[in-house]
Amino acid sequence: MTLDNISANKCFGGWNKQYTHRSAVLNCEMRFAIFLPPQISKGQKVPVLYWLSGLTCTDENFMHKAGAQRIAADLGIAIVAPDTSPRGEGVADDPDAGYDFGLGAGFYVNATQAPWNRHYQMYDYVVNELPELIEAHFPVSQQRAISGHSMGGHGALTIALRNPQRYSSVSAFSPISNPINCPWGQKAFTGYLGKDCESWKQYDASELMKQAETKLPALVDQGDQDGFLAEQLKPEALIAAAQASQYPLELRMQEGYDHSYFFMASFIEDHLRFHASHFGA
Amino acid sequence: MTLDNISANKCFGGWNKQYTHRSAVLNCEMRFAIFLPPQISKGQKVPVLYWLSGLTCTDENFMHKAGAQRIAADLGIAIVAPDTSPRGEGVADDPDAGYDFGLGAGFYVNATQAPWNRHYQMYDYVVNELPELIEAHFPVSQQRAISGHSMGGHGALTIALRNPQRYSSVSAFSPISNPINCPWGQKAFTGYLGKDCESWKQYDASELMKQAETKLPALVDQGDQDGFLAEQLKPEALIAAAQASQYPLELRMQEGYDHSYFFMASFIEDHLRFHASHFGA
Repeated sequence: MTLDNISANKCFGGWNKQYTHRSAVLNCEMRFAIFLPPQISKGQKVPVLYWLSGLTCTDENFMHKAGAQRIAADLGIAIVAPDTSPRGEGVADDPDAGYDFGLGAGFYVNATQAPWNRHYQMYDYVVNELPELIEAHFPVSQQRAISGHSMGGHGALTIALRNPQRYSSVSAFSPISNPINCPWGQKAFTGYLGKDCESWKQYDASELMKQAETKLPALVDQGDQDGFLAEQLKPEALIAAAQASQYPLELRMQEGYDHSYFFMASFIEDHLRFHASHFGA
Repeated sequence: MTLDNISANKCFGGWNKQYTHRSAVLNCEMRFAIFLPPQISKGQKVPVLYWLSGLTCTDENFMHKAGAQRIAADLGIAIVAPDTSPRGEGVADDPDAGYDFGLGAGFYVNATQAPWNRHYQMYDYVVNELPELIEAHFPVSQQRAISGHSMGGHGALTIALRNPQRYSSVSAFSPISNPINCPWGQKAFTGYLGKDCESWKQYDASELMKQAETKLPALVDQGDQDGFLAEQLKPEALIAAAQASQYPLELRMQEGYDHSYFFMASFIEDHLRFHASHFGA
Protein backbone atom coordinates (compact mmCIF):
# COMPACT_ATOMS: atom_id res chain seq x y z
CA MET A 1 0.00 0.00 0.00
CA THR A 2 1.61 3.24 -1.12
CA LEU A 3 0.39 6.76 -0.52
CA ASP A 4 0.95 9.81 -2.70
CA ASN A 5 0.95 13.11 -0.89
CA ILE A 6 -0.79 15.71 -3.07
CA SER A 7 -1.19 18.67 -0.71
CA ALA A 8 0.17 19.93 2.59
CA ASN A 9 -0.91 23.10 4.41
CA LYS A 10 0.30 24.10 7.82
CA CYS A 11 -2.73 24.69 10.02
CA PHE A 12 -2.87 25.54 13.75
CA GLY A 13 0.68 24.31 14.17
CA GLY A 14 -0.15 20.94 12.57
CA TRP A 15 -0.62 19.86 8.97
CA ASN A 16 -3.65 19.45 6.78
CA LYS A 17 -2.72 17.02 4.02
CA GLN A 18 -4.30 15.09 1.17
CA TYR A 19 -3.19 11.73 -0.15
CA THR A 20 -4.20 9.46 -2.98
CA HIS A 21 -3.85 5.69 -2.94
CA ARG A 22 -5.04 2.63 -4.79
CA SER A 23 -7.91 1.04 -2.86
CA ALA A 24 -8.13 -2.73 -3.24
CA VAL A 25 -11.56 -2.75 -1.61
CA LEU A 26 -13.04 -0.05 -3.83
CA ASN A 27 -11.08 -1.08 -6.90
CA CYS A 28 -10.10 2.47 -7.81
CA GLU A 29 -7.84 5.32 -6.78
CA MET A 30 -9.08 7.20 -3.73
CA ARG A 31 -8.24 10.50 -2.07
CA PHE A 32 -8.47 11.29 1.62
CA ALA A 33 -7.60 14.25 3.82
CA ILE A 34 -5.82 14.03 7.15
CA PHE A 35 -5.15 16.61 9.83
CA LEU A 36 -2.05 15.81 11.85
CA PRO A 37 -1.90 17.79 15.10
CA PRO A 38 1.34 19.39 16.31
CA GLN A 39 1.78 16.76 19.03
CA ILE A 40 3.10 14.25 16.48
CA SER A 41 6.27 16.31 16.05
CA LYS A 42 7.16 15.31 19.62
CA GLY A 43 6.99 11.63 18.67
CA GLN A 44 3.58 11.23 20.29
CA LYS A 45 1.11 8.73 18.78
CA VAL A 46 -2.27 10.39 18.59
CA PRO A 47 -5.82 9.01 18.43
CA VAL A 48 -7.84 9.40 15.23
CA LEU A 49 -11.30 10.76 14.58
CA TYR A 50 -12.73 9.42 11.32
CA TRP A 51 -15.10 11.92 9.75
CA LEU A 52 -17.70 10.81 7.18
CA SER A 53 -19.20 13.56 5.05
CA GLY A 54 -22.62 13.93 3.53
CA LEU A 55 -24.12 13.80 0.04
CA THR A 56 -22.11 15.54 -2.72
CA CYS A 57 -19.08 16.10 -0.47
CA THR A 58 -15.48 15.02 -1.03
CA ASP A 59 -12.64 14.71 1.46
CA GLU A 60 -12.35 18.52 1.40
CA ASN A 61 -15.62 20.01 2.64
CA PHE A 62 -15.21 19.21 6.31
CA MET A 63 -11.55 20.19 6.38
CA HIS A 64 -12.32 23.55 4.74
CA LYS A 65 -15.49 24.51 6.53
CA ALA A 66 -15.95 22.98 9.98
CA GLY A 67 -13.10 24.67 11.83
CA ALA A 68 -12.22 21.38 13.55
CA GLN A 69 -8.44 21.69 13.28
CA ARG A 70 -8.22 24.33 15.99
CA ILE A 71 -9.61 21.98 18.64
CA ALA A 72 -7.91 18.89 17.23
CA ALA A 73 -4.57 20.72 17.49
CA ASP A 74 -5.37 21.65 21.06
CA LEU A 75 -6.45 18.14 22.07
CA GLY A 76 -3.87 16.20 20.05
CA ILE A 77 -6.28 14.33 17.78
CA ALA A 78 -5.75 13.42 14.13
CA ILE A 79 -8.76 13.71 11.80
CA VAL A 80 -9.18 11.55 8.71
CA ALA A 81 -11.81 12.45 6.12
CA PRO A 82 -12.37 9.98 3.28
CA ASP A 83 -14.30 10.72 0.11
CA THR A 84 -18.03 9.88 0.04
CA SER A 85 -17.91 7.30 -2.77
CA PRO A 86 -15.51 5.58 -5.11
CA ARG A 87 -14.45 7.88 -7.96
CA GLY A 88 -12.73 7.83 -11.31
CA GLU A 89 -13.02 6.43 -14.77
CA GLY A 90 -14.94 3.17 -14.84
CA VAL A 91 -16.74 3.77 -11.55
CA ALA A 92 -20.48 3.37 -12.13
CA ASP A 93 -22.67 6.45 -11.95
CA ASP A 94 -26.15 7.41 -13.04
CA PRO A 95 -26.25 11.13 -13.68
CA ASP A 96 -30.04 10.94 -14.08
CA ALA A 97 -30.37 9.58 -10.55
CA GLY A 98 -29.56 12.96 -9.00
CA TYR A 99 -27.17 14.06 -6.28
CA ASP A 100 -28.34 11.40 -3.81
CA PHE A 101 -27.18 8.23 -5.59
CA GLY A 102 -23.92 7.18 -7.24
CA LEU A 103 -20.84 9.42 -7.19
CA GLY A 104 -20.67 11.42 -3.97
CA ALA A 105 -23.40 9.27 -2.45
CA GLY A 106 -21.91 5.90 -1.50
CA PHE A 107 -23.99 5.68 1.71
CA TYR A 108 -21.20 3.72 3.47
CA VAL A 109 -22.63 0.33 2.43
CA ASN A 110 -21.20 -2.67 0.58
CA ALA A 111 -23.22 -2.75 -2.64
CA THR A 112 -24.46 -6.16 -3.77
CA GLN A 113 -26.18 -5.09 -6.99
CA ALA A 114 -24.54 -4.68 -10.40
CA PRO A 115 -23.06 -2.43 -11.61
CA TRP A 116 -22.56 -0.83 -8.19
CA ASN A 117 -20.98 -3.83 -6.46
CA ARG A 118 -17.79 -3.54 -8.51
CA HIS A 119 -16.69 -0.39 -6.66
CA TYR A 120 -19.22 0.77 -4.09
CA GLN A 121 -17.87 -0.99 -0.98
CA MET A 122 -17.56 2.06 1.26
CA TYR A 123 -18.47 0.14 4.43
CA ASP A 124 -15.43 -2.13 4.17
CA TYR A 125 -13.26 0.76 3.09
CA VAL A 126 -14.09 2.87 6.14
CA VAL A 127 -14.15 -0.01 8.65
CA ASN A 128 -11.02 -1.82 7.53
CA GLU A 129 -8.90 -0.66 4.64
CA LEU A 130 -8.64 3.02 5.50
CA PRO A 131 -7.72 2.56 9.20
CA GLU A 132 -5.12 -0.07 8.23
CA LEU A 133 -3.61 2.40 5.82
CA ILE A 134 -3.66 5.25 8.33
CA GLU A 135 -2.22 3.16 11.14
CA ALA A 136 0.56 1.85 8.88
CA HIS A 137 1.64 5.25 7.54
CA PHE A 138 1.05 7.85 10.26
CA PRO A 139 2.08 8.22 13.91
CA VAL A 140 -1.35 7.34 15.27
CA SER A 141 -2.53 5.03 18.01
CA GLN A 142 -5.29 2.45 17.57
CA GLN A 143 -7.68 4.65 19.49
CA ARG A 144 -10.44 5.59 17.08
CA ALA A 145 -13.63 7.60 17.17
CA ILE A 146 -16.06 8.18 14.32
CA SER A 147 -18.39 11.01 13.38
CA GLY A 148 -20.15 12.41 10.36
CA HIS A 149 -22.87 14.58 8.89
CA SER A 150 -26.18 13.61 7.32
CA MET A 151 -25.37 10.60 5.07
CA GLY A 152 -22.06 10.53 6.95
CA GLY A 153 -23.87 10.63 10.29
CA HIS A 154 -25.74 7.54 9.14
CA GLY A 155 -22.38 6.02 8.19
CA ALA A 156 -20.74 6.86 11.52
CA LEU A 157 -23.62 5.51 13.60
CA THR A 158 -24.06 2.27 11.64
CA ILE A 159 -20.33 1.56 11.49
CA ALA A 160 -19.88 2.23 15.22
CA LEU A 161 -22.96 0.19 16.14
CA ARG A 162 -21.69 -2.81 14.14
CA ASN A 163 -18.06 -2.47 15.28
CA PRO A 164 -18.14 -1.19 18.85
CA GLN A 165 -14.80 -2.86 19.61
CA ARG A 166 -13.09 -0.64 17.02
CA TYR A 167 -14.19 2.77 18.37
CA SER A 168 -14.26 4.44 21.76
CA SER A 169 -17.13 6.81 20.94
CA VAL A 170 -19.41 7.91 18.10
CA SER A 171 -21.10 11.18 17.23
CA ALA A 172 -23.13 12.65 14.39
CA PHE A 173 -24.64 15.85 13.09
CA SER A 174 -28.06 15.62 11.47
CA PRO A 175 -27.75 11.88 10.70
CA ILE A 176 -30.09 9.98 8.39
CA SER A 177 -31.24 8.02 11.43
CA ASN A 178 -33.69 5.59 9.92
CA PRO A 179 -32.81 5.24 6.22
CA ILE A 180 -35.08 2.26 5.59
CA ASN A 181 -37.99 4.62 6.23
CA CYS A 182 -36.95 7.74 4.30
CA PRO A 183 -36.69 8.59 0.59
CA TRP A 184 -32.89 9.09 0.53
CA GLY A 185 -32.30 5.74 2.22
CA GLN A 186 -34.89 3.78 0.27
CA LYS A 187 -33.55 5.01 -3.03
CA ALA A 188 -29.92 4.28 -2.14
CA PHE A 189 -30.57 0.90 -0.55
CA THR A 190 -32.77 -0.26 -3.43
CA GLY A 191 -30.00 0.66 -5.84
CA TYR A 192 -27.02 -0.69 -3.90
CA LEU A 193 -28.64 -3.60 -2.00
CA GLY A 194 -31.67 -4.61 -4.07
CA LYS A 195 -35.34 -4.81 -3.23
CA ASP A 196 -35.14 -7.14 -0.23
CA CYS A 197 -35.77 -4.74 2.63
CA GLU A 198 -34.49 -7.21 5.20
CA SER A 199 -30.96 -6.73 3.89
CA TRP A 200 -31.28 -3.00 4.46
CA LYS A 201 -31.58 -3.27 8.23
CA GLN A 202 -27.87 -3.97 8.73
CA TYR A 203 -27.30 -0.38 7.56
CA ASP A 204 -30.04 1.33 9.58
CA ALA A 205 -28.87 3.11 12.75
CA SER A 206 -32.25 2.87 14.46
CA GLU A 207 -32.61 -0.86 13.71
CA LEU A 208 -29.07 -1.51 14.94
CA MET A 209 -29.36 0.63 18.05
CA LYS A 210 -32.57 -1.14 19.10
CA GLN A 211 -30.65 -4.41 19.39
CA ALA A 212 -27.27 -3.11 20.49
CA GLU A 213 -25.51 -5.05 23.22
CA THR A 214 -22.04 -3.50 23.37
CA LYS A 215 -22.67 0.20 23.76
CA LEU A 216 -20.54 3.24 22.99
CA PRO A 217 -20.94 6.79 24.23
CA ALA A 218 -22.96 8.51 21.49
CA LEU A 219 -23.62 12.21 20.87
CA VAL A 220 -25.95 13.54 18.16
CA ASP A 221 -26.67 17.18 17.34
CA GLN A 222 -29.69 18.02 15.21
CA GLY A 223 -30.89 21.48 14.19
CA ASP A 224 -34.61 22.01 14.70
CA GLN A 225 -34.79 24.22 11.57
CA ASP A 226 -33.15 21.60 9.35
CA GLY A 227 -35.14 21.43 6.12
CA PHE A 228 -34.57 17.65 5.89
CA LEU A 229 -35.60 16.90 9.47
CA ALA A 230 -39.06 15.40 9.14
CA GLU A 231 -38.82 13.64 5.79
CA GLN A 232 -35.24 12.36 5.72
CA LEU A 233 -33.54 12.44 9.12
CA LYS A 234 -36.11 11.11 11.63
CA PRO A 235 -34.21 11.52 14.91
CA GLU A 236 -37.35 10.32 16.74
CA ALA A 237 -36.66 6.80 15.45
CA LEU A 238 -33.16 6.93 16.92
CA ILE A 239 -34.46 8.23 20.25
CA ALA A 240 -36.99 5.40 20.39
CA ALA A 241 -34.29 2.85 19.55
CA ALA A 242 -32.02 4.20 22.29
CA GLN A 243 -34.87 3.94 24.78
CA ALA A 244 -35.57 0.34 23.71
CA SER A 245 -31.99 -0.81 24.31
CA GLN A 246 -31.07 1.73 26.98
CA TYR A 247 -28.36 3.00 24.68
CA PRO A 248 -26.29 5.90 26.12
CA LEU A 249 -27.34 8.35 23.40
CA GLU A 250 -27.33 12.07 23.98
CA LEU A 251 -29.37 13.68 21.21
CA ARG A 252 -29.51 17.46 21.36
CA MET A 253 -32.07 19.43 19.37
CA GLN A 254 -30.39 22.75 18.63
CA GLU A 255 -32.82 25.62 18.34
CA GLY A 256 -32.74 27.62 15.12
CA TYR A 257 -29.96 25.66 13.41
CA ASP A 258 -30.21 24.11 9.95
CA HIS A 259 -28.40 21.40 7.93
CA SER A 260 -25.38 23.51 6.94
CA TYR A 261 -21.72 23.71 7.86
CA PHE A 262 -22.57 26.87 9.81
CA PHE A 263 -24.40 24.52 12.19
CA MET A 264 -21.56 22.01 12.36
CA ALA A 265 -18.92 24.68 12.89
CA SER A 266 -20.96 25.96 15.84
CA PHE A 267 -20.84 22.63 17.70
CA ILE A 268 -17.80 20.74 16.38
CA GLU A 269 -15.81 21.72 19.46
CA ASP A 270 -18.30 19.86 21.67
CA HIS A 271 -17.90 16.74 19.52
CA LEU A 272 -14.13 16.78 19.59
CA ARG A 273 -14.07 17.30 23.36
CA PHE A 274 -16.63 14.49 23.74
CA HIS A 275 -14.45 12.07 21.76
CA ALA A 276 -11.29 13.21 23.58
CA SER A 277 -12.93 12.47 26.91
CA HIS A 278 -13.49 8.84 25.84
CA PHE A 279 -10.05 8.09 24.42
CA GLY A 280 -8.03 6.09 26.94
CA ALA A 281 -5.09 7.70 28.65
CA MET B 1 -31.57 51.62 -0.87
CA THR B 2 -33.32 48.29 -0.44
CA LEU B 3 -31.76 44.98 0.56
CA ASP B 4 -32.96 41.51 -0.39
CA ASN B 5 -32.11 38.78 2.07
CA ILE B 6 -31.19 35.63 0.15
CA SER B 7 -29.77 33.35 2.87
CA ALA B 8 -29.76 33.07 6.66
CA ASN B 9 -27.92 30.42 8.68
CA LYS B 10 -27.73 30.39 12.45
CA CYS B 11 -24.09 30.23 13.45
CA PHE B 12 -22.53 30.37 16.93
CA GLY B 13 -25.74 31.84 18.30
CA GLY B 14 -25.72 34.64 15.70
CA TRP B 15 -26.66 34.75 12.04
CA ASN B 16 -24.69 34.42 8.85
CA LYS B 17 -26.70 36.11 6.11
CA GLN B 18 -26.37 37.15 2.49
CA TYR B 19 -28.06 40.10 0.84
CA THR B 20 -28.29 41.52 -2.64
CA HIS B 21 -28.78 45.18 -3.44
CA ARG B 22 -28.50 47.60 -6.32
CA SER B 23 -25.22 49.47 -6.08
CA ALA B 24 -25.35 52.99 -7.46
CA VAL B 25 -21.56 53.27 -7.28
CA LEU B 26 -20.88 50.01 -9.12
CA ASN B 27 -23.89 50.35 -11.42
CA CYS B 28 -24.95 46.71 -10.94
CA GLU B 29 -26.53 44.33 -8.45
CA MET B 30 -24.15 43.25 -5.70
CA ARG B 31 -24.16 40.54 -3.06
CA PHE B 32 -22.55 40.71 0.36
CA ALA B 33 -22.39 38.47 3.42
CA ILE B 34 -22.82 39.63 6.99
CA PHE B 35 -22.32 37.87 10.29
CA LEU B 36 -24.48 39.33 13.04
CA PRO B 37 -23.33 38.25 16.50
CA PRO B 38 -25.81 37.18 19.19
CA GLN B 39 -25.34 40.45 21.10
CA ILE B 40 -27.65 42.29 18.67
CA SER B 41 -30.64 40.34 19.99
CA LYS B 42 -30.20 42.26 23.25
CA GLY B 43 -30.57 45.56 21.37
CA GLN B 44 -26.83 46.20 21.45
CA LYS B 45 -25.21 48.09 18.55
CA VAL B 46 -22.06 46.27 17.56
CA PRO B 47 -18.89 47.38 15.75
CA VAL B 48 -18.18 46.08 12.24
CA LEU B 49 -15.13 44.42 10.74
CA TYR B 50 -15.07 44.83 6.95
CA TRP B 51 -13.35 41.87 5.32
CA LEU B 52 -11.93 42.14 1.79
CA SER B 53 -11.20 38.87 0.03
CA GLY B 54 -8.56 37.95 -2.50
CA LEU B 55 -8.47 37.10 -6.19
CA THR B 56 -11.28 34.80 -7.46
CA CYS B 57 -13.23 35.00 -4.19
CA THR B 58 -16.82 36.09 -3.65
CA ASP B 59 -18.57 37.17 -0.44
CA GLU B 60 -18.67 33.50 0.60
CA ASN B 61 -15.08 32.21 0.88
CA PHE B 62 -14.14 33.94 4.10
CA MET B 63 -17.47 33.20 5.76
CA HIS B 64 -17.19 29.50 4.89
CA LYS B 65 -13.53 28.88 5.57
CA ALA B 66 -11.92 31.22 8.08
CA GLY B 67 -13.81 30.22 11.23
CA ALA B 68 -14.14 33.87 12.23
CA GLN B 69 -17.74 33.69 13.45
CA ARG B 70 -16.80 31.87 16.65
CA ILE B 71 -14.66 34.74 17.88
CA ALA B 72 -16.91 37.46 16.46
CA ALA B 73 -19.82 35.91 18.38
CA ASP B 74 -17.73 35.90 21.52
CA LEU B 75 -16.51 39.47 21.11
CA GLY B 76 -19.75 40.96 19.76
CA ILE B 77 -18.45 42.06 16.37
CA ALA B 78 -20.33 42.03 13.07
CA ILE B 79 -18.38 41.00 9.97
CA VAL B 80 -19.23 42.27 6.49
CA ALA B 81 -17.72 40.58 3.44
CA PRO B 82 -18.36 42.21 0.05
CA ASP B 83 -17.72 40.58 -3.30
CA THR B 84 -14.32 41.18 -4.95
CA SER B 85 -15.59 42.94 -8.07
CA PRO B 86 -18.75 44.14 -9.74
CA ARG B 87 -20.71 41.25 -11.28
CA GLY B 88 -23.52 40.51 -13.67
CA GLU B 89 -24.62 40.96 -17.21
CA GLY B 90 -23.02 43.98 -18.84
CA VAL B 91 -20.09 44.16 -16.42
CA ALA B 92 -16.87 44.20 -18.42
CA ASP B 93 -14.62 41.19 -18.27
CA ASP B 94 -11.74 39.79 -20.26
CA PRO B 95 -11.69 36.03 -19.92
CA ASP B 96 -8.35 35.92 -21.73
CA ALA B 97 -6.80 38.11 -19.05
CA GLY B 98 -6.81 35.29 -16.49
CA TYR B 99 -7.97 35.08 -12.88
CA ASP B 100 -6.10 38.20 -11.81
CA PHE B 101 -7.98 40.86 -13.77
CA GLY B 102 -11.66 41.62 -14.33
CA LEU B 103 -14.40 39.63 -12.56
CA GLY B 104 -13.28 38.54 -9.09
CA ALA B 105 -10.28 40.86 -9.31
CA GLY B 106 -11.49 44.42 -8.80
CA PHE B 107 -8.40 45.37 -6.75
CA TYR B 108 -10.42 47.85 -4.65
CA VAL B 109 -9.64 50.78 -6.97
CA ASN B 110 -11.79 53.26 -8.87
CA ALA B 111 -11.10 52.43 -12.52
CA THR B 112 -10.54 55.35 -14.85
CA GLN B 113 -10.07 53.43 -18.10
CA ALA B 114 -12.85 52.25 -20.45
CA PRO B 115 -14.58 49.82 -20.39
CA TRP B 116 -13.69 49.18 -16.73
CA ASN B 117 -14.66 52.58 -15.39
CA ARG B 118 -18.38 51.96 -15.95
CA HIS B 119 -18.56 49.42 -13.07
CA TYR B 120 -15.18 48.84 -11.42
CA GLN B 121 -15.38 51.40 -8.60
CA MET B 122 -14.68 49.07 -5.70
CA TYR B 123 -12.77 51.69 -3.70
CA ASP B 124 -15.79 53.96 -3.40
CA TYR B 125 -18.06 51.00 -2.82
CA VAL B 126 -16.07 49.73 0.14
CA VAL B 127 -15.22 53.13 1.61
CA ASN B 128 -18.63 54.78 1.31
CA GLU B 129 -21.62 53.00 -0.19
CA LEU B 130 -21.37 49.68 1.62
CA PRO B 131 -20.86 51.11 5.14
CA GLU B 132 -23.75 53.55 4.57
CA LEU B 133 -25.95 50.62 3.61
CA ILE B 134 -24.82 48.52 6.57
CA GLU B 135 -25.23 51.34 9.07
CA ALA B 136 -28.70 52.16 7.74
CA HIS B 137 -30.04 48.59 7.83
CA PHE B 138 -28.34 46.74 10.69
CA PRO B 139 -27.92 47.38 14.43
CA VAL B 140 -24.29 48.40 14.15
CA SER B 141 -22.31 51.27 15.57
CA GLN B 142 -20.04 53.51 13.52
CA GLN B 143 -16.98 51.75 14.91
CA ARG B 144 -15.26 50.10 11.96
CA ALA B 145 -12.18 48.02 11.37
CA ILE B 146 -10.95 46.61 8.09
CA SER B 147 -8.99 43.53 7.12
CA GLY B 148 -8.42 41.29 4.13
CA HIS B 149 -6.32 38.69 2.39
CA SER B 150 -3.87 39.07 -0.50
CA MET B 151 -5.61 41.43 -2.99
CA GLY B 152 -7.99 42.13 -0.10
CA GLY B 153 -5.08 42.80 2.24
CA HIS B 154 -3.91 45.39 -0.28
CA GLY B 155 -7.48 46.77 -0.28
CA ALA B 156 -7.70 46.91 3.51
CA LEU B 157 -4.34 48.62 3.96
CA THR B 158 -4.81 51.20 1.21
CA ILE B 159 -8.36 52.05 2.27
CA ALA B 160 -7.37 52.39 5.94
CA LEU B 161 -4.28 54.44 5.09
CA ARG B 162 -6.35 56.87 3.01
CA ASN B 163 -9.27 57.03 5.44
CA PRO B 164 -7.83 56.71 8.93
CA GLN B 165 -10.72 58.68 10.42
CA ARG B 166 -13.16 55.98 9.31
CA TYR B 167 -11.46 52.99 11.00
CA SER B 168 -10.07 52.23 14.43
CA SER B 169 -7.57 49.58 13.25
CA VAL B 170 -6.45 47.67 10.15
CA SER B 171 -5.05 44.22 9.58
CA ALA B 172 -4.15 41.96 6.69
CA PHE B 173 -3.08 38.46 5.79
CA SER B 174 -0.49 38.09 3.02
CA PRO B 175 -1.26 41.51 1.49
CA ILE B 176 -0.04 42.63 -1.92
CA SER B 177 2.06 45.24 -0.14
CA ASN B 178 3.65 47.08 -3.03
CA PRO B 179 1.46 46.50 -6.09
CA ILE B 180 3.17 49.11 -8.24
CA ASN B 181 6.23 46.83 -8.15
CA CYS B 182 4.71 43.38 -8.69
CA PRO B 183 3.12 41.62 -11.68
CA TRP B 184 -0.39 41.33 -10.21
CA GLY B 185 -0.48 45.02 -9.33
CA GLN B 186 1.13 46.27 -12.53
CA LYS B 187 -1.31 44.30 -14.68
CA ALA B 188 -4.36 45.42 -12.72
CA PHE B 189 -3.33 49.07 -12.41
CA THR B 190 -2.41 49.32 -16.10
CA GLY B 191 -5.84 47.96 -16.99
CA TYR B 192 -7.93 49.90 -14.51
CA LEU B 193 -5.89 53.11 -14.17
CA GLY B 194 -3.89 53.42 -17.39
CA LYS B 195 -0.17 53.64 -18.04
CA ASP B 196 0.63 56.68 -15.89
CA CYS B 197 2.39 55.05 -12.94
CA GLU B 198 2.03 58.20 -10.82
CA SER B 199 -1.71 57.55 -10.58
CA TRP B 200 -1.02 54.07 -9.22
CA LYS B 201 0.63 55.30 -6.03
CA GLN B 202 -2.68 56.31 -4.40
CA TYR B 203 -3.45 52.55 -4.30
CA ASP B 204 -0.08 51.29 -3.07
CA ALA B 205 0.10 50.44 0.64
CA SER B 206 3.86 50.95 0.86
CA GLU B 207 3.73 54.33 -0.91
CA LEU B 208 0.85 55.46 1.32
CA MET B 209 2.41 54.18 4.55
CA LYS B 210 5.67 56.00 3.86
CA GLN B 211 3.84 59.32 3.96
CA ALA B 212 1.16 58.53 6.54
CA GLU B 213 0.46 61.20 9.14
CA THR B 214 -2.64 59.91 10.93
CA LYS B 215 -1.72 56.40 12.02
CA LEU B 216 -3.85 53.39 12.90
CA PRO B 217 -2.83 50.27 14.78
CA ALA B 218 -1.88 47.80 12.02
CA LEU B 219 -1.31 44.04 12.19
CA VAL B 220 -0.08 41.94 9.24
CA ASP B 221 0.46 38.18 9.18
CA GLN B 222 2.52 36.65 6.38
CA GLY B 223 3.43 32.99 5.92
CA ASP B 224 7.09 32.42 5.14
CA GLN B 225 6.20 29.48 2.86
CA ASP B 226 3.74 31.51 0.81
CA GLY B 227 4.37 30.74 -2.87
CA PHE B 228 3.58 34.36 -3.83
CA LEU B 229 5.81 35.95 -1.22
CA ALA B 230 8.84 37.14 -3.17
CA GLU B 231 7.29 38.00 -6.52
CA GLN B 232 3.87 39.40 -5.60
CA LEU B 233 3.55 40.27 -1.92
CA LYS B 234 6.79 42.08 -0.98
CA PRO B 235 6.27 42.63 2.76
CA GLU B 236 9.79 44.09 2.93
CA ALA B 237 8.49 47.18 1.12
CA LEU B 238 5.81 47.64 3.77
CA ILE B 239 8.30 47.18 6.58
CA ALA B 240 10.58 49.82 5.06
CA ALA B 241 7.63 52.18 4.64
CA ALA B 242 6.61 51.70 8.28
CA GLN B 243 10.16 52.47 9.38
CA ALA B 244 10.23 55.62 7.24
CA SER B 245 7.06 57.06 8.81
CA GLN B 246 7.33 55.34 12.20
CA TYR B 247 4.02 53.66 11.46
CA PRO B 248 2.78 51.34 14.25
CA LEU B 249 2.87 48.24 12.07
CA GLU B 250 3.27 44.78 13.56
CA LEU B 251 4.22 42.43 10.73
CA ARG B 252 4.60 38.80 11.79
CA MET B 253 6.34 36.25 9.59
CA GLN B 254 4.66 32.94 10.40
CA GLU B 255 6.96 29.96 9.97
CA GLY B 256 5.79 27.21 7.65
CA TYR B 257 2.48 28.81 6.65
CA ASP B 258 1.36 29.39 3.07
CA HIS B 259 -1.20 31.57 1.24
CA SER B 260 -4.27 29.43 2.01
CA TYR B 261 -7.32 29.67 4.23
CA PHE B 262 -5.65 27.09 6.48
CA PHE B 263 -3.19 29.87 7.33
CA MET B 264 -5.88 32.48 7.87
CA ALA B 265 -8.00 30.17 10.02
CA SER B 266 -4.95 29.61 12.23
CA PHE B 267 -4.54 33.30 13.07
CA ILE B 268 -7.94 34.94 12.51
CA GLU B 269 -8.61 34.88 16.26
CA ASP B 270 -5.58 37.13 16.84
CA HIS B 271 -6.89 39.60 14.25
CA LEU B 272 -10.37 39.78 15.72
CA ARG B 273 -9.00 40.26 19.24
CA PHE B 274 -6.64 42.93 17.89
CA HIS B 275 -9.52 44.86 16.32
CA ALA B 276 -11.72 44.38 19.39
CA SER B 277 -9.00 45.88 21.58
CA HIS B 278 -9.07 49.06 19.49
CA PHE B 279 -12.81 49.61 19.29
CA GLY B 280 -13.82 52.29 21.79
CA ALA B 281 -15.87 51.28 24.84
